[in-house]
Amino acid sequence: MKAKIVITPKKAVLDPQGKTVQNALEHMGYAGVTGVHVGKYLEIDLAAGTDRAAAEKALHEACHRFLSNPVIEDYRLEVVD
Amino acid sequence: MKAKIVITPKKAVLDPQGKTVQNALEHMGYAGVTGVHVGKYLEIDLAAGTDRAAAEKALHEACHRFLSNPVIEDYRLEVVD
Repeated sequence: MKAKIVITPKKAVLDPQGKTVQNALEHMGYAGVTGVHVGKYLEIDLAAGTDRAAAEKALHEACHRFLSNPVIEDYRLEVVD
Repeated sequence: MKAKIVITPKKAVLDPQGKTVQNALEHMGYAGVTGVHVGKYLEIDLAAGTDRAAAEKALHEACHRFLSNPVIEDYRLEVVD
Protein backbone atom coordinates (compact mmCIF):
# COMPACT_ATOMS: atom_id res chain seq x y z
CA MET A 1 0.00 0.00 0.00
CA LYS A 2 1.17 3.49 -0.81
CA ALA A 3 0.20 6.97 0.24
CA LYS A 4 0.64 9.84 -2.18
CA ILE A 5 0.70 13.32 -0.71
CA VAL A 6 0.77 16.53 -2.70
CA ILE A 7 1.53 19.71 -0.78
CA THR A 8 0.94 23.02 -2.56
CA PRO A 9 1.11 26.62 -1.39
CA LYS A 10 -2.33 28.12 -0.77
CA LYS A 11 -3.58 30.25 -3.66
CA ALA A 12 -3.39 33.43 -1.57
CA VAL A 13 0.26 32.83 -0.68
CA LEU A 14 3.07 34.17 -2.86
CA ASP A 15 4.77 31.38 -4.78
CA PRO A 16 8.13 32.79 -5.91
CA GLN A 17 9.35 29.38 -7.09
CA GLY A 18 6.29 29.03 -9.32
CA LYS A 19 6.74 32.54 -10.65
CA THR A 20 10.37 31.75 -11.49
CA VAL A 21 9.43 28.59 -13.37
CA GLN A 22 6.72 30.52 -15.22
CA ASN A 23 9.21 33.21 -16.27
CA ALA A 24 11.72 30.56 -17.32
CA LEU A 25 9.10 28.80 -19.46
CA GLU A 26 8.21 32.11 -21.16
CA HIS A 27 11.86 32.97 -21.75
CA MET A 28 12.47 29.62 -23.35
CA GLY A 29 9.62 30.17 -25.75
CA TYR A 30 6.84 28.12 -24.20
CA ALA A 31 3.77 30.31 -24.75
CA GLY A 32 0.33 29.93 -23.20
CA VAL A 33 1.41 29.36 -19.61
CA THR A 34 -0.82 31.44 -17.35
CA GLY A 35 0.44 30.26 -13.99
CA VAL A 36 2.72 27.80 -12.25
CA HIS A 37 2.45 26.44 -8.73
CA VAL A 38 5.32 24.50 -7.23
CA GLY A 39 4.75 22.12 -4.37
CA LYS A 40 6.11 19.02 -2.76
CA TYR A 41 5.29 15.42 -3.48
CA LEU A 42 5.67 12.61 -0.95
CA GLU A 43 5.24 8.94 -1.64
CA ILE A 44 5.01 6.86 1.50
CA ASP A 45 5.30 3.07 1.29
CA LEU A 46 3.23 1.33 3.93
CA ALA A 47 3.86 -2.16 5.26
CA ALA A 48 1.65 -4.87 3.79
CA GLY A 49 -1.40 -5.56 5.91
CA THR A 50 -1.66 -2.01 7.23
CA ASP A 51 -5.24 -1.03 7.99
CA ARG A 52 -6.23 1.47 5.32
CA ALA A 53 -8.55 3.62 7.42
CA ALA A 54 -6.12 3.78 10.34
CA ALA A 55 -3.22 4.64 8.02
CA GLU A 56 -5.24 7.39 6.39
CA LYS A 57 -6.15 8.85 9.75
CA ALA A 58 -2.55 8.74 10.99
CA LEU A 59 -1.24 10.30 7.78
CA HIS A 60 -3.79 13.12 7.87
CA GLU A 61 -2.58 13.84 11.38
CA ALA A 62 1.08 13.70 10.29
CA CYS A 63 0.33 16.02 7.35
CA HIS A 64 -1.24 18.47 9.69
CA ARG A 65 1.43 18.26 12.34
CA PHE A 66 4.65 18.33 10.39
CA LEU A 67 4.55 17.27 6.76
CA SER A 68 2.81 20.45 5.68
CA ASN A 69 2.41 23.91 7.16
CA PRO A 70 -1.38 24.37 7.36
CA VAL A 71 -0.99 28.15 7.62
CA ILE A 72 0.39 28.54 4.12
CA GLU A 73 -0.02 25.13 2.48
CA ASP A 74 -2.79 22.79 1.39
CA TYR A 75 -2.31 19.08 1.03
CA ARG A 76 -4.05 16.24 -0.78
CA LEU A 77 -3.69 12.73 0.55
CA GLU A 78 -4.52 9.60 -1.39
CA VAL A 79 -3.95 6.01 -0.30
CA VAL A 80 -3.62 3.52 -3.16
CA ASP A 81 -2.93 -0.21 -3.29
CA MET B 1 -6.43 23.30 -18.92
CA LYS B 2 -3.85 22.25 -16.43
CA ALA B 3 -0.72 20.15 -16.49
CA LYS B 4 0.33 18.24 -13.40
CA ILE B 5 3.93 17.15 -13.21
CA VAL B 6 5.39 14.93 -10.51
CA ILE B 7 9.17 14.69 -10.36
CA THR B 8 10.68 11.98 -8.16
CA PRO B 9 14.24 10.79 -7.63
CA LYS B 10 15.00 7.55 -9.46
CA LYS B 11 14.78 4.48 -7.23
CA ALA B 12 18.54 3.86 -7.52
CA VAL B 13 19.38 7.38 -6.36
CA LEU B 14 19.88 8.17 -2.68
CA ASP B 15 16.96 10.18 -1.31
CA PRO B 16 18.20 11.76 1.93
CA GLN B 17 15.10 13.94 2.25
CA GLY B 18 12.87 10.88 2.05
CA LYS B 19 15.03 9.05 4.58
CA THR B 20 14.75 12.01 6.94
CA VAL B 21 10.97 12.11 6.67
CA GLN B 22 10.84 8.34 7.23
CA ASN B 23 12.96 8.65 10.39
CA ALA B 24 10.83 11.55 11.62
CA LEU B 25 7.64 9.54 11.11
CA GLU B 26 9.10 6.61 13.05
CA HIS B 27 10.30 8.87 15.85
CA MET B 28 6.87 10.39 16.17
CA GLY B 29 5.31 6.99 16.56
CA TYR B 30 3.92 6.33 13.11
CA ALA B 31 4.66 2.64 12.58
CA GLY B 32 4.44 0.64 9.38
CA VAL B 33 6.24 3.08 7.10
CA THR B 34 8.66 1.12 4.93
CA GLY B 35 9.90 3.92 2.71
CA VAL B 36 9.44 7.55 1.79
CA HIS B 37 10.27 9.28 -1.47
CA VAL B 38 10.21 13.04 -1.68
CA GLY B 39 9.80 14.78 -4.99
CA LYS B 40 8.54 17.94 -6.58
CA TYR B 41 5.08 18.76 -7.82
CA LEU B 42 4.36 21.33 -10.49
CA GLU B 43 0.95 22.53 -11.55
CA ILE B 44 1.00 24.51 -14.78
CA ASP B 45 -2.07 26.49 -15.83
CA LEU B 46 -2.44 26.65 -19.58
CA ALA B 47 -4.33 29.32 -21.49
CA ALA B 48 -7.81 28.33 -22.63
CA GLY B 49 -7.88 26.99 -26.15
CA THR B 50 -4.37 25.56 -26.00
CA ASP B 51 -3.98 22.51 -28.20
CA ARG B 52 -3.69 19.54 -25.87
CA ALA B 53 -1.33 17.42 -27.95
CA ALA B 54 0.98 20.34 -28.70
CA ALA B 55 1.01 21.39 -25.04
CA GLU B 56 1.84 17.86 -23.96
CA LYS B 57 4.70 17.66 -26.45
CA ALA B 58 6.11 21.05 -25.37
CA LEU B 59 5.84 20.15 -21.69
CA HIS B 60 7.57 16.80 -22.18
CA GLU B 61 10.38 18.69 -23.83
CA ALA B 62 10.49 21.27 -21.02
CA CYS B 63 10.51 18.49 -18.41
CA HIS B 64 13.43 16.91 -20.16
CA ARG B 65 15.35 20.11 -20.71
CA PHE B 66 15.04 21.92 -17.43
CA LEU B 67 12.13 21.03 -15.16
CA SER B 68 13.67 17.70 -14.18
CA ASN B 69 17.16 16.26 -14.24
CA PRO B 70 16.78 13.09 -16.33
CA VAL B 71 20.02 11.67 -14.95
CA ILE B 72 18.69 11.31 -11.42
CA GLU B 73 14.96 12.01 -11.68
CA ASP B 74 11.86 10.55 -13.27
CA TYR B 75 8.81 12.60 -14.09
CA ARG B 76 5.15 11.93 -14.76
CA LEU B 77 3.16 14.39 -16.81
CA GLU B 78 -0.60 14.53 -16.98
CA VAL B 79 -2.73 17.12 -18.76
CA VAL B 80 -6.22 17.55 -17.35
CA ASP B 81 -9.13 19.84 -18.22
